[in-house]
Amino acid sequence: MGKNLTKRSEDYSKWYNELVMKAELAENSAVRGCMVIKPYGYAIWEKMQAQLDKMFKETGHENAYFPLFIPKSYLSKEADHIEGFAKECAVVTHYRLKNAEDGSGVVVDPDAKLEEELIVRPTSETIIWDTYRKWVQSYRDLPILVNQWANVVRWELRTRMFLRTAEFLWQEGHTAHETKEEAIAEAEQMMNVYADFAENFMGVPVIKGVKTDSERFAGALETYCIEALMQDGKALQAGTSHFLGQNFAKAFDVKFANKEGKQDYVWATSWGVSTRLMGALIMTHSDDNGLVLPPKLAPIQVVIVPIYKGEEQLDAISERVEPLVKELRAKGISVKFDNRDTHKPGWKFNEYELKGVPVRLAIGMRDMENNTFEVARRDTLSKEVVAADLVVDKIETLLEEIQENVFNKALEYRESHITKVDTFEEFKELLESKGGFLSAHWDGTAETEDKIKELTKATIRCIPLDAEKESGKCIYSGKPSNQRVLFAKAY
Amino acid sequence: MGKNLTKRSEDYSKWYNELVMKAELAENSAVRGCMVIKPYGYAIWEKMQAQLDKMFKETGHENAYFPLFIPKSYLSKEADHIEGFAKECAVVTHYRLKNAEDGSGVVVDPDAKLEEELIVRPTSETIIWDTYRKWVQSYRDLPILVNQWANVVRWELRTRMFLRTAEFLWQEGHTAHETKEEAIAEAEQMMNVYADFAENFMGVPVIKGVKTDSERFAGALETYCIEALMQDGKALQAGTSHFLGQNFAKAFDVKFANKEGKQDYVWATSWGVSTRLMGALIMTHSDDNGLVLPPKLAPIQVVIVPIYKGEEQLDAISERVEPLVKELRAKGISVKFDNRDTHKPGWKFNEYELKGVPVRLAIGMRDMENNTFEVARRDTLSKEVVAADLVVDKIETLLEEIQENVFNKALEYRESHITKVDTFEEFKELLESKGGFLSAHWDGTAETEDKIKELTKATIRCIPLDAEKESGKCIYSGKPSNQRVLFAKAY
Repeated sequence: MGKNLTKRSEDYSKWYNELVMKAELAENSAVRGCMVIKPYGYAIWEKMQAQLDKMFKETGHENAYFPLFIPKSYLSKEADHIEGFAKECAVVTHYRLKNAEDGSGVVVDPDAKLEEELIVRPTSETIIWDTYRKWVQSYRDLPILVNQWANVVRWELRTRMFLRTAEFLWQEGHTAHETKEEAIAEAEQMMNVYADFAENFMGVPVIKGVKTDSERFAGALETYCIEALMQDGKALQAGTSHFLGQNFAKAFDVKFANKEGKQDYVWATSWGVSTRLMGALIMTHSDDNGLVLPPKLAPIQVVIVPIYKGEEQLDAISERVEPLVKELRAKGISVKFDNRDTHKPGWKFNEYELKGVPVRLAIGMRDMENNTFEVARRDTLSKEVVAADLVVDKIETLLEEIQENVFNKALEYRESHITKVDTFEEFKELLESKGGFLSAHWDGTAETEDKIKELTKATIRCIPLDAEKESGKCIYSGKPSNQRVLFAKAY
Repeated sequence: MGKNLTKRSEDYSKWYNELVMKAELAENSAVRGCMVIKPYGYAIWEKMQAQLDKMFKETGHENAYFPLFIPKSYLSKEADHIEGFAKECAVVTHYRLKNAEDGSGVVVDPDAKLEEELIVRPTSETIIWDTYRKWVQSYRDLPILVNQWANVVRWELRTRMFLRTAEFLWQEGHTAHETKEEAIAEAEQMMNVYADFAENFMGVPVIKGVKTDSERFAGALETYCIEALMQDGKALQAGTSHFLGQNFAKAFDVKFANKEGKQDYVWATSWGVSTRLMGALIMTHSDDNGLVLPPKLAPIQVVIVPIYKGEEQLDAISERVEPLVKELRAKGISVKFDNRDTHKPGWKFNEYELKGVPVRLAIGMRDMENNTFEVARRDTLSKEVVAADLVVDKIETLLEEIQENVFNKALEYRESHITKVDTFEEFKELLESKGGFLSAHWDGTAETEDKIKELTKATIRCIPLDAEKESGKCIYSGKPSNQRVLFAKAY
């Protein structure tokens, strides 16, 4: 159909980049590693935001906003945190430009050097915990359940649109609690909220688990995560929720008077998902014809394309279509009637396929006579002719079916790509031939984890929460292990 | 009532700062000039955003996202633009920190110096027009109607929460058009959208006008604005919409093939409002008891406070209140039933007055017996007893009345503070004694404008769009003038 999209089987990575561009989701900007999120891509992100925001509020969270800049010294206050983030940040050193003396443009004004450099936030734990110190005196001030929608910057060397960019958009929840138990429950709750969102809105099946010591967030005691599997057999971390213990409270001296009147440090969590989810969404469902979107996140759920010759026919079709558009909109379904005269129906079919619109209606003179519509679904590319008086019901059913189908298809792929392996030879062989998650025993040491990564590029994606206890031997060291963990190559 | 709020008549500026803090809207952060927007303040901003976003979409705009960073050389491409913004920007010069050799913390890694410095966006015309070059080839690609919700940074020396902060949140619309007429119509349309929002949602009356040459946006041919008047007689620019001509298209070489097949430069607009609107909202309506919020932007529209002794009474009241809460919520009214046992009713009354909740219901045992509620409105501080079966209607009416009343009150103040003056002596005298807008003749020169500013601190807020043509003499120079303009001291 002339989309000129590289096939996934040929070059998955190239297919992804082309799709992001051609479906007008995003493009690279002139600023190294920073992308422009185009209106169609941003519309999907807005739908994600709206749903997540609703779920955060339903679980008692409020939004707030903290500064973009973090004083350099703050980053050093939590020892692990600085190790994890210092290597990749944008540093503001000056606050003024001036005209170059030779008239060649503008230069940094050396007189406007900051006393202390400011870091563009890579994440906001430090500035937020510095603020919470002022908010918390007693247990009555707890819990603090705050979320922030923001941009963050991490200076990545190798970037890919949505998956890894120097600047990205995300939300970061930062909560403060009286007890360890409450903080752990919060971190687990938010992992569950993320899993619910990924599966029931994005249609992306995920595995819940915890990270190993080496993969844990810098400053956390436990990192809960949801891991998804892309169509090329590589895993993608879709969201993380951290139990931070009292690390940040200690670093920023955030104490409270507990119910017994004693001073204690506050317990913390943080949790976030980012525009990376866009990458997960694209790579989980899309095909060689373009994007496939789950109806719940599709900016346009139904597109109607008229097939006509001349204005008279278009007028007749429009008259038939307009009440349908109204009826669908009244049901909360987003519909586009593409009556542009500048493009042919074939071009439009192609365009909406590329953009992943879940349901496409076409109506020509034959349909006008028979009082029918041709109804096509994007996920299966199948078509059928539906009587006009049944078409609204049909669309409603289809949107539900497509939502379910994209999830089930992804789940089936994921399930068939979790493979138990018991030897390192088999591990290496399967990682290359089949990919996906390899469920294997591991001796629990960072040394083995590092060695396996070095030899195969596979990392431990998570220790699944639902893993059965099972005695076994580490695939690499042969040392005893009591449960399997999931390895994979990952984005 | 123990709010310890400075009176407006004593020190308006102190009153404002205290109110922002005590009503938990925002606070200063550890980063110079950057504020923390607290959950209650952010909830108001979210309501503003939601309404504005709806209005932008209704007028055909889509959201997108562009990079936070702007290469230094981009700022120089439009000559006026760089003059206006270069003096106040955060400059990123390095992309890495490293551990200090003496173990004292982290330092900037001198090896990680950027080849070209990056500016944290003070506004995004340059990076966006650099992007539009790739989006536009022919008239078929126009118009581009894009908006961005983002944070921006301008290095201000003297900052005040919401009114002037180094980092602030805003939206910036950037549109591209085929013709001059279309671009001007767009700029005017967005000024009207802002005025509609200010008056009908914020309850803030505004004057529409255009800026003089010296007050115009750096790079614009015309700046449309809406100007509001605060209770202390100072004006506040609440929103601007710029007709940019072909300046940015020329600077970034954005051409298109027009309908005649000829290459032409694209016509541009940009328009924005920011968290500064929060300042306008606070200063327009609030009083010595605290915040007064228009119902359409109040995070909590109705609060219900039970007056009781012991659990049994609270249970009885709760049983009466809960169906009411449900009924109000079903009508889309946001209600809080504050049944906390940790605070007394008097404390709660005080708190919600401070936070500007439009309607407060109280219910005690007497009301239980009489089947009534005490209903208080925040704007007038008046109270009345209302029969339970009439209370929902009463609340609905009250919310409308309060919305109208706060606007009318502000309008009345504004109208009584536009004074025609014809001599410079009178001008100076009234500016100090009464304040507000002074409607006066001006000779149209920047010299006179500067001189008046130097002598009085008053600036020309705008040339009102609805100003009558009238022959007169400039209050300062005595030279001829054909219409009055509005002067004021301003935030």
